[in-house]
Amino acid sequence: MRVYLAGPDVFLPDPLARGAALKAVCARHGLTGVFPMDALDQEPEEWAGLAEPHRIALRNEAHIRGADALIANLTPFRGPSADVGTVFELGFMRALNRPVFGWSNGHPVFLARTRAFLGDAASLAGDGVWRDGEGMALESFGCLDNLMIDGAVAASGGVLEVADLDAATRWTDLAAFERCVARAAAVLAAG
Amino acid sequence: MRVYLAGPDVFLPDPLARGAALKAVCARHGLTGVFPMDALDQEPEEWAGLAEPHRIALRNEAHIRGADALIANLTPFRGPSADVGTVFELGFMRALNRPVFGWSNGHPVFLARTRAFLGDAASLAGDGVWRDGEGMALESFGCLDNLMIDGAVAASGGVLEVADLDAATRWTDLAAFERCVARAAAVLAAG
Repeated sequence: MRVYLAGPDVFLPDPLARGAALKAVCARHGLTGVFPMDALDQEPEEWAGLAEPHRIALRNEAHIRGADALIANLTPFRGPSADVGTVFELGFMRALNRPVFGWSNGHPVFLARTRAFLGDAASLAGDGVWRDGEGMALESFGCLDNLMIDGAVAASGGVLEVADLDAATRWTDLAAFERCVARAAAVLAAG
Repeated sequence: MRVYLAGPDVFLPDPLARGAALKAVCARHGLTGVFPMDALDQEPEEWAGLAEPHRIALRNEAHIRGADALIANLTPFRGPSADVGTVFELGFMRALNRPVFGWSNGHPVFLARTRAFLGDAASLAGDGVWRDGEGMALESFGCLDNLMIDGAVAASGGVLEVADLDAATRWTDLAAFERCVARAAAVLAAG
């Protein structure tokens, strides 16, 4: 079974080594990991004329369509939430009605992370809602991230696995990822 | 034709008023705007036992499946990128092969916004790649946001409309949104 490995891992200093490490974990659990930078078996000729970012986007979409499940690295990225490219891909796979999983090496509660990010700009309004400096509400459901993410993972039969690590190991430790892979293998085996 | 209105607009102080304003623009262009907070015609009975965030997520997914196109408010939200819930929904609709559109009232270049967000933590590495303090690369394709977003909009036949506004009008001005609605109406009319 093929599992698409969504995540900001592609931005790491050595993304190919990272992809190989993630795939090795998948292989230990009997799954084939598909990394976004993998080449397609055959790229449509009509893509040749596309700008590079558009071609990469279509390649990633094709990888997702060709996978049985998706595992997203939801570790907070340049803000309180996960990387938006990763979350785009999670939504894409969710619409295909296949199981989606997530893991994160950050703090497990979205509200706490958002408050920490906003600092003094966050305040508890009279209606009991936390709001930022522009008056926009903070989600306070106890979710890992925006409710569309938590909701999709739950509804698809996936799981979220979290390890609250500090910056030194956030982009290297794969324990939460491996727990996620093990659960994905079990869900896919159960069919 | 029905257009799903994805965006962090739901977090504004008066989200129902905002939804009504967005729908009024859609109506002027012959489209029916669907706001995330709209009730479903009929909510499945089995959702009654779900936690609130999971029920909201499924409602939004149902709204998207019931729409002919999606227009996303991609104005940067608590970081250099768009709101992740919005981007999840954009990816979801893209997987359904329907046209997706985006608008933003922020700076039009993702790399510039990310550099501004990172400040001194961003530096130009010897290989010509901008990297953050953790060594992770910045996308530098000239896109509005992560390439999955720009790529999906382009491939689906949609457009991106941007107005580079300051904080005072970023969450009120609807000029870029209206241009987006006009283009969506034209694309949907052309079939």
